[in-house]
Amino acid sequence: MSAVPADPVLFPRSGSAPAIAVVLLGTGVVGGALLKLLNTSSASTLRLVGAANSRRQQTEPARLAQRNLREQLNQHGAPRDDAGLRAALDASGAPVRVIIDATASATLAARHAEWLAQGYHVVTANKALAGGELSGWRALQAALAQGGRYGDSATVGAGLPVLSTLRRLRHCGDALLTLEGVFSGSLSWLFNQYDGRRPFSELLREARQLGYTEPDPRSDLSGEDVARKLLIIARNAGYALGTDEVQVEGLVPPSLRALDTEAFMARLDELDAALAARHAEASSRGCVLRFLACLNQRGQARVGLAEVPLTHPAARLYGTDNQFALTTTRYNTQPLVIQGPGAGPEVTAQALLGDVLALG
Amino acid sequence: MSAVPADPVLFPRSGSAPAIAVVLLGTGVVGGALLKLLNTSSASTLRLVGAANSRRQQTEPARLAQRNLREQLNQHGAPRDDAGLRAALDASGAPVRVIIDATASATLAARHAEWLAQGYHVVTANKALAGGELSGWRALQAALAQGGRYGDSATVGAGLPVLSTLRRLRHCGDALLTLEGVFSGSLSWLFNQYDGRRPFSELLREARQLGYTEPDPRSDLSGEDVARKLLIIARNAGYALGTDEVQVEGLVPPSLRALDTEAFMARLDELDAALAARHAEASSRGCVLRFLACLNQRGQARVGLAEVPLTHPAARLYGTDNQFALTTTRYNTQPLVIQGPGAGPEVTAQALLGDVLALG
Ligand SMILES: NC(=O)c1ccc[n+]([C@@H]2O[C@H](COP(=O)([O-])OP(=O)(O)OC[C@H]3O[C@@H](n4cnc5c(N)ncnc54)[C@H](OP(=O)(O)O)[C@@H]3O)[C@@H](O)[C@H]2O)c1
Ligand SMILES: NC(=O)c1ccc[n+]([C@@H]2O[C@H](COP(=O)([O-])OP(=O)(O)OC[C@H]3O[C@@H](n4cnc5c(N)ncnc54)[C@H](OP(=O)(O)O)[C@@H]3O)[C@@H](O)[C@H]2O)c1
Repeated sequence: MSAVPADPVLFPRSGSAPAIAVVLLGTGVVGGALLKLLNTSSASTLRLVGAANSRRQQTEPARLAQRNLREQLNQHGAPRDDAGLRAALDASGAPVRVIIDATASATLAARHAEWLAQGYHVVTANKALAGGELSGWRALQAALAQGGRYGDSATVGAGLPVLSTLRRLRHCGDALLTLEGVFSGSLSWLFNQYDGRRPFSELLREARQLGYTEPDPRSDLSGEDVARKLLIIARNAGYALGTDEVQVEGLVPPSLRALDTEAFMARLDELDAALAARHAEASSRGCVLRFLACLNQRGQARVGLAEVPLTHPAARLYGTDNQFALTTTRYNTQPLVIQGPGAGPEVTAQALLGDVLALG
Repeated sequence: MSAVPADPVLFPRSGSAPAIAVVLLGTGVVGGALLKLLNTSSASTLRLVGAANSRRQQTEPARLAQRNLREQLNQHGAPRDDAGLRAALDASGAPVRVIIDATASATLAARHAEWLAQGYHVVTANKALAGGELSGWRALQAALAQGGRYGDSATVGAGLPVLSTLRRLRHCGDALLTLEGVFSGSLSWLFNQYDGRRPFSELLREARQLGYTEPDPRSDLSGEDVARKLLIIARNAGYALGTDEVQVEGLVPPSLRALDTEAFMARLDELDAALAARHAEASSRGCVLRFLACLNQRGQARVGLAEVPLTHPAARLYGTDNQFALTTTRYNTQPLVIQGPGAGPEVTAQALLGDVLALG
């Protein structure tokens, strides 16, 4: 009788290699929620081999396993150094090595293409590359053509199945004709609430207190974040738009742009008169105001306040819901609409995890 | 200098094997639309090696390539024989062999598990297995545990990304809490139109003429098709419900159930009084009627007419749109809503193609 051969050893058994090794950049709101998810059974095929904030990083297994990793990063972490994190991925022996970007850093985003070229997969909540300059998008496409995968579900709608659906449709020969929707949770909430009775500035203060806006609400009001999301969708739909090809009409008047956050917050009521007038006008025509992103059939992109009739899908939004209405060659009588919470640490972290697991 | 070795020959070059070989069962409305899609560049990795209707089948390459394949199937086809179709898949040399079921045949559905066990993948628009008896669902799960994949996107919402989203969420540890929606295009249209002014029977005749209902509208009105879709979603969410665990309140009174189609159509106005009364009652409370499917947090499933307030998402549906509202552990303040055309040959065929391509 011949002996049964041992299983071929694909990876060194010592410390038995995981199926997927990950490094997490960013341990803020989203990164923190992801660390919690990594401790659940859904992530059992994953091993965290490195984590970093803007100043410090950690690659020691014992420390990475600690529940208070985020808190102790600054005390016990080593200084930031990307090479050390990549070395931890390489040393893991895992066949799938993933860098997760849960920061808003443009510097890090600019490295995504390089990481892909080096054989790492990238999963990101950071919109700065795909939603930034067209040259960056092109570098990304060039890197992806060489292999490597880019998980971007968290960049639009915090994981609502928008990009995946668009890609599946295109794969089958369908094409995006128009796109319309509300892509910002804070702006959704503000205009779902705004009925002219309370001044806009009062609602804005409330939204900030509820944590719906960024600490400096101008980041939301400027429309720049919405424009980035629109660029990401449009580019994934085959429209290679530059940042200057999105017409953005933000809500911050020039007089309030240069102030620091505190000074801006003190002068918030300067926003009220203009918005009250636009609301009254819209009302007189039986319409409501919504902060919409639109891409029309000629590839023209626009982000800004719009009047919509009560029968418009965006007129019926709740809370901080996002909405994405896609008209395609085959979904042409009625749009395919995806709607729901488009922000929040848990759903965003889940989107990152889903993208990582899809690489396995 | 050493000679450059030739590429390894993975498959016999003669007739060069396709990446994916498919057999199409059913050349009706959906199957016909799929045949058109198979002639586009999106399907270039696919080869159709067999097609069948209920009586005849074709496996000759020259005839399969003809644009009038559907029409000439009955003249030139061989008699139906599943084994001949499977033989064509095997002879293709393709590494991925797929049987597409675009019929409503319960007999064929009952064979899906067997085909999977034999190493074929199954892609289906036919709901009879996953939405039928629980024993069939269990047999399917057992077969899938042995390998093989089951493309079911077309069975619910004609390819709206409902099942894929649910599976991705569950994969990340999320869990479906409640599900509510309108799962039938014809019933959506009927109740989106019905405002008590025109009798229900008149709308129903119009819907039938527009092709929104089945030739015998009782197939729609019974709620059985909606119940099958609810079962498919619930089972994919982990609730192993039996067919008798969905409470179905159809719209066809017992007195009209045994008639043939013509006799039923002649007595359609017998539906009117009861519906007019329900509509008036709902109106008096500021509500509208919708044909809803619901799964609550205790796993209880119900299909039938319901009164919903105007603020309810289902109150704002258009045309023949379907709507699926999912509340999950992580989407718990507001549901994740997917809405849009949930029927139609093109989108359904596209869903089948998408599932096939995903196997490649
Ligand atoms: N919050 C949401 O609901 C949501 C939804 C979708 C997408 N996103 C996107 O997700 C990203 C993160 O959002 P967040 O809300 O978690 O932000 P956050 O709370 O401000 O956290 C950002 C994190 O990134 C870290 N960081 C910055 N530069 C870094 C660098 N060079 N290397 C390593 N780490 C660095 C920061 O470090 P320090 O702690 O040292 O400052 C911080 O831990 C953003 O791109 C955001 O647009 C957020
Ligand atoms: N139409 C839609 O919008 C839609 C959307 C989602 C899902 N679906 C589902 O898709 C399926 C097909 O729908 P449809 O509208 O295309 O129906 P259809 O037009 O009635 O076509 C059914 C086809 O199945 C064939 N067939 C029946 N038994 C067969 C067998 N044993 N072997 C091979 N072929 C057989 C029929 O053959 P004959 O031509 O010989 O009768 C016919 O070609 C159904 O399950 C339906 O519920 C339809």
